[in-house]
Amino acid sequence: MENKVKVGIVGATGYAGVELVRLLLNHPYTEIVGISSVSFGGRDISEIYPGLRPEFQKELSSDPQQFLKGCDVVFASLPHGLSEGIALACMENDVLFIDLGADFRLDSENDYRKWYGKPFDYPKLHTQSVYGLCEWFREDIKKAKLVGNPGCYPTSIALGLWPALKKGLIQPKGIIIDSKSGVTGAGRSLTQNTHYPECNEALAAYKAGAHRHLPEIEQTLSKAGSGDVQVTFLPHLVPVNRGILSTIYCDCPADMETVRAAYEEAYGAERFVTVLREGEYANIRNVRCSNSCHISLHRDEHSGKLIVCSAIDNMVKGAAGQAVQNMNLILGLEEDCGLTAVAPAF
Amino acid sequence: MENKVKVGIVGATGYAGVELVRLLLNHPYTEIVGISSVSFGGRDISEIYPGLRPEFQKELSSDPQQFLKGCDVVFASLPHGLSEGIALACMENDVLFIDLGADFRLDSENDYRKWYGKPFDYPKLHTQSVYGLCEWFREDIKKAKLVGNPGCYPTSIALGLWPALKKGLIQPKGIIIDSKSGVTGAGRSLTQNTHYPECNEALAAYKAGAHRHLPEIEQTLSKAGSGDVQVTFLPHLVPVNRGILSTIYCDCPADMETVRAAYEEAYGAERFVTVLREGEYANIRNVRCSNSCHISLHRDEHSGKLIVCSAIDNMVKGAAGQAVQNMNLILGLEEDCGLTAVAPAF
Amino acid sequence: MENKVKVGIVGATGYAGVELVRLLLNHPYTEIVGISSVSFGGRDISEIYPGLRPEFQKELSSDPQQFLKGCDVVFASLPHGLSEGIALACMENDVLFIDLGADFRLDSENDYRKWYGKPFDYPKLHTQSVYGLCEWFREDIKKAKLVGNPGCYPTSIALGLWPALKKGLIQPKGIIIDSKSGVTGAGRSLTQNTHYPECNEALAAYKAGAHRHLPEIEQTLSKAGSGDVQVTFLPHLVPVNRGILSTIYCDCPADMETVRAAYEEAYGAERFVTVLREGEYANIRNVRCSNSCHISLHRDEHSGKLIVCSAIDNMVKGAAGQAVQNMNLILGLEEDCGLTAVAPAF
Amino acid sequence: MENKVKVGIVGATGYAGVELVRLLLNHPYTEIVGISSVSFGGRDISEIYPGLRPEFQKELSSDPQQFLKGCDVVFASLPHGLSEGIALACMENDVLFIDLGADFRLDSENDYRKWYGKPFDYPKLHTQSVYGLCEWFREDIKKAKLVGNPGCYPTSIALGLWPALKKGLIQPKGIIIDSKSGVTGAGRSLTQNTHYPECNEALAAYKAGAHRHLPEIEQTLSKAGSGDVQVTFLPHLVPVNRGILSTIYCDCPADMETVRAAYEEAYGAERFVTVLREGEYANIRNVRCSNSCHISLHRDEHSGKLIVCSAIDNMVKGAAGQAVQNMNLILGLEEDCGLTAVAPAF
Repeated sequence: MENKVKVGIVGATGYAGVELVRLLLNHPYTEIVGISSVSFGGRDISEIYPGLRPEFQKELSSDPQQFLKGCDVVFASLPHGLSEGIALACMENDVLFIDLGADFRLDSENDYRKWYGKPFDYPKLHTQSVYGLCEWFREDIKKAKLVGNPGCYPTSIALGLWPALKKGLIQPKGIIIDSKSGVTGAGRSLTQNTHYPECNEALAAYKAGAHRHLPEIEQTLSKAGSGDVQVTFLPHLVPVNRGILSTIYCDCPADMETVRAAYEEAYGAERFVTVLREGEYANIRNVRCSNSCHISLHRDEHSGKLIVCSAIDNMVKGAAGQAVQNMNLILGLEEDCGLTAVAPAF
Repeated sequence: MENKVKVGIVGATGYAGVELVRLLLNHPYTEIVGISSVSFGGRDISEIYPGLRPEFQKELSSDPQQFLKGCDVVFASLPHGLSEGIALACMENDVLFIDLGADFRLDSENDYRKWYGKPFDYPKLHTQSVYGLCEWFREDIKKAKLVGNPGCYPTSIALGLWPALKKGLIQPKGIIIDSKSGVTGAGRSLTQNTHYPECNEALAAYKAGAHRHLPEIEQTLSKAGSGDVQVTFLPHLVPVNRGILSTIYCDCPADMETVRAAYEEAYGAERFVTVLREGEYANIRNVRCSNSCHISLHRDEHSGKLIVCSAIDNMVKGAAGQAVQNMNLILGLEEDCGLTAVAPAF
Repeated sequence: MENKVKVGIVGATGYAGVELVRLLLNHPYTEIVGISSVSFGGRDISEIYPGLRPEFQKELSSDPQQFLKGCDVVFASLPHGLSEGIALACMENDVLFIDLGADFRLDSENDYRKWYGKPFDYPKLHTQSVYGLCEWFREDIKKAKLVGNPGCYPTSIALGLWPALKKGLIQPKGIIIDSKSGVTGAGRSLTQNTHYPECNEALAAYKAGAHRHLPEIEQTLSKAGSGDVQVTFLPHLVPVNRGILSTIYCDCPADMETVRAAYEEAYGAERFVTVLREGEYANIRNVRCSNSCHISLHRDEHSGKLIVCSAIDNMVKGAAGQAVQNMNLILGLEEDCGLTAVAPAF
Repeated sequence: MENKVKVGIVGATGYAGVELVRLLLNHPYTEIVGISSVSFGGRDISEIYPGLRPEFQKELSSDPQQFLKGCDVVFASLPHGLSEGIALACMENDVLFIDLGADFRLDSENDYRKWYGKPFDYPKLHTQSVYGLCEWFREDIKKAKLVGNPGCYPTSIALGLWPALKKGLIQPKGIIIDSKSGVTGAGRSLTQNTHYPECNEALAAYKAGAHRHLPEIEQTLSKAGSGDVQVTFLPHLVPVNRGILSTIYCDCPADMETVRAAYEEAYGAERFVTVLREGEYANIRNVRCSNSCHISLHRDEHSGKLIVCSAIDNMVKGAAGQAVQNMNLILGLEEDCGLTAVAPAF
């Protein structure tokens, strides 16, 4: 590539934002030309994140409009409701836009209204946007200019179940999903629950039946081919920095050979999804800081249930990494540009 | 009490053993007269666990026979297969015996043989032994001389489901149990999985369909009153020292008022089981180092499932604490003697 | 004791406050009659700390005056500047007052003004108050009605150095103190530094030459008998919940036999200070949740320096535990009432 | 580069070994052609470290001789005493050899004998070997064929003190070094001290005056220009996976402006050493997984001491990263090839 791709990051000091910075600094074909932050506008990002030094020092803008037009690609990582305006400006200026927030994940405005308490600001944009689950919507993504990057829980779950649903191997109803997330999933804002002494050595579920990722999970799984999917989804907070492990229980009349074959067919050629061998268990440790998803398949011989364990790094494949993967797809780059780092062993 | 109860601990340097020491040192009516350890016989226990100093220094015997006859009560915390002989010696000497291992948990010798690979050594002992889940077998325990102390996972699960099963509020089949345990659950023996750098910041399931607590779980739940119970049970290892959280998913035609009433009726007068208020979530943090079980009840309105979260400290209510509670019951002491400590807030 | 001692806790929802609750609930001769909190007045303390259930449920007052007069003893754990008024009210009502904050730790108003930016509000109170380092000011404490409970760092350091200074074995100048504290030392207030993902897997020093415990450290050590002590003190934040380890480097012309003899003479009969054997190292793990201080002594043969490692639980011996010990001393109770729990092994 | 550099790794399943794998996989000009392991010979490395999948799967040799001659560069990460033979074979075959163990760090055979209990096996090799502290021995390294890669503690300490010693700003005697290391520093072998439940929430010093890095520290510092350096060095084990923080206390007659200028002059152009701004503190978090060293400088106004805080990732700049940096120097590559990744923010 002769000229580097010019990238802007809106919300660069949030956790997904700074993870984008980390990944893009290692991307061979991109250049970060603008970063913004409402909280830290005017300061250098390396004051907030000294780990970027000496590699990267750059002043944060208060207003993304200051750099948006000079970008080829803009990523935004913002609370819901704040991305649509930026998306609009990007579309008007022919800038590729990838949203790491929730604004472009749900197809149905009714669903969005129900779960986020507001209508779409620019409904027309939603007809253009594509859901950026790379492995399953790759061809659509390649043609997109506006991508809704999937949520972290939905990514781990959709990758874990899609092959079985696609082949009709499991029942689409009655699926139980017990997900466990590291604390970065709760973001950088301070809360009592994420205060070190109250989070360390602790473990609990939260938001039973009320997590905003639920409609996204069912919407995505229902496209896999087995009809409308209905799940019970319960997230837990685990005292680790990174990682999501989703343990998924399903009714599966098919035998394990068939199941395993379906997963190997689906993911055998995929760069970022690894189906583990029999007897191995997906572990967040083995995908940490990488864009990988590890999937392990287990038959509980006693009850007959199929159990799928799916592990990702919530900040990489569950956020910034998949966003870069989406960018690579659209720009026609190698899909793993900037994403080749393996998980550190410890 | 005029004279203190003389207690011996076999396997005192294992994690459950030293936890027994900690609890009994705070018990107003007991005196530890003998402690044994195969690995550390001849050394003082406070060399292995300096935290016992200055309160408790005592030489470990290699052979429990050296102190067994001088005891009123003997606790053993040993790998399976090693407790029966000690139980026999206790019965012959009219010493109360409480086994923290697996030897006296299963009623059926067939089950034992299947899961532990050997027959009962002394089948007659098993007709005398009582399963020590205090809240539900209290009257039997009071009359017992030989107690099989429940496993940690089974305790969290049985306390969590019993009221609903007893009242017939949930379906006894198709129950999904996703359990998460702290690392002390794996014991003091060194393994790669529990080596700090490989366990820290990690999270995975293990032993799908193959954990030895499974038959104990189903055996116990099947006594609650809804007939034969069948579960899918999957344990996970979480990087915390202490605590088990079992998240249990069931089909429950009854409404939440009825469910909540059943739990409050069952546990309202119980010293060690707390049913949390609506909107609260059971957290291992709130039972740490204490003999409490916290239970929270949730209805997933979306799927209709009842979700029960049950949290205990695996080393206290899941092992040494419940063992002391059993001793108190049999000796006619206040049930909470030595067990009144609340969980430290952090 | 016929009647229980009536205790009030001002600032009961801060970390030291709730730790007082935990310890006093296990004290055989006390009854908590009042608890207050500015932030949570009107709510039950067990909503904020569910781990207290079912043992302890009690409404928090907004104003300690509501219970102060009905108390025999009042403990306060408040930001500096807020304890003097409560102390005055206690003295006027003949209520014993033990302050866990900083208001009564410094003898010199000039020092207080310099480090805390304000004068004493009631200078006369400071002529009555006693510094509550139990092992070294025991006789004064027994006669006191008003106690300034020592800070956590100063406690670990004063216990670690006193015997050597008292006997004149080390040089009082040029002492280097490298202290490491768990995160509860920073309190319950939310900060970015104590946000789980930024505190976990992190380690750094803070407040070089500027920590408010410095004047208290030098004031206390200078009373030990070797003249004015001058130290370099640097605290570090370590990702654990509890514990302080102070590693202290001194010039010590005396030989190790003499040093060890001085420590054994000083602490041989002390219930809460243990001098470890040669080759052992003080570890915060071995004093966790207990009122113990573990001290290990090391000679660096290479450089000749004496190294003292002193470990306490910052929340127990460094705060609430020592406060209870002070109360016991004044009331003529056994010094270890309510403080007999040994450190859990894990 | 037309052809990739062929690299072999001896001891590839130890922690430094697998970290080398991780870094070299991201190196643009290297190819791993051989890996060996005594413990796991014959197995695929991705069975031991599943995080390498899908990127890297390769069978481990039992014997490095199988691949040594086909390599341009061989790295070894072995217990002391095992590298010299491999070094000899490399020299005979004109293969560049970089040793991550201790065999080539000490100049003096007497020192080696004293601290490691054996003589040099091939003394002549030691006249060829160069000490691989890149920032300070760069020109020697460029000409070397045999490199002794520095130890982790010595790297953090030498980078932290060298500029001050070089300019004669601090006293070379009486330096106190309080170092804290993450648990990977103890390696992959199982020990009770590094068993999760006994290491988590724990903190202690170890090996006072007896750590084998001491002679290396003094040897290196004594070359900086202020004459023979004498230090007190005490390492501590901290419950984090990665990172070393060395807190160094020195007598420094010079003023802070002069000190700061010396460090900025020394490191202003260095890619991997960052001198933090006034008021900032070196934190292991900010160098995690990266080859950076962060240094902060503090004057304790009270005692006059200069305090230097130096943070590195013990596994990168303290082991595998610096080894790659050494290889880059010798091969004439950009010094940061394969080492450009910034520290993840969390």
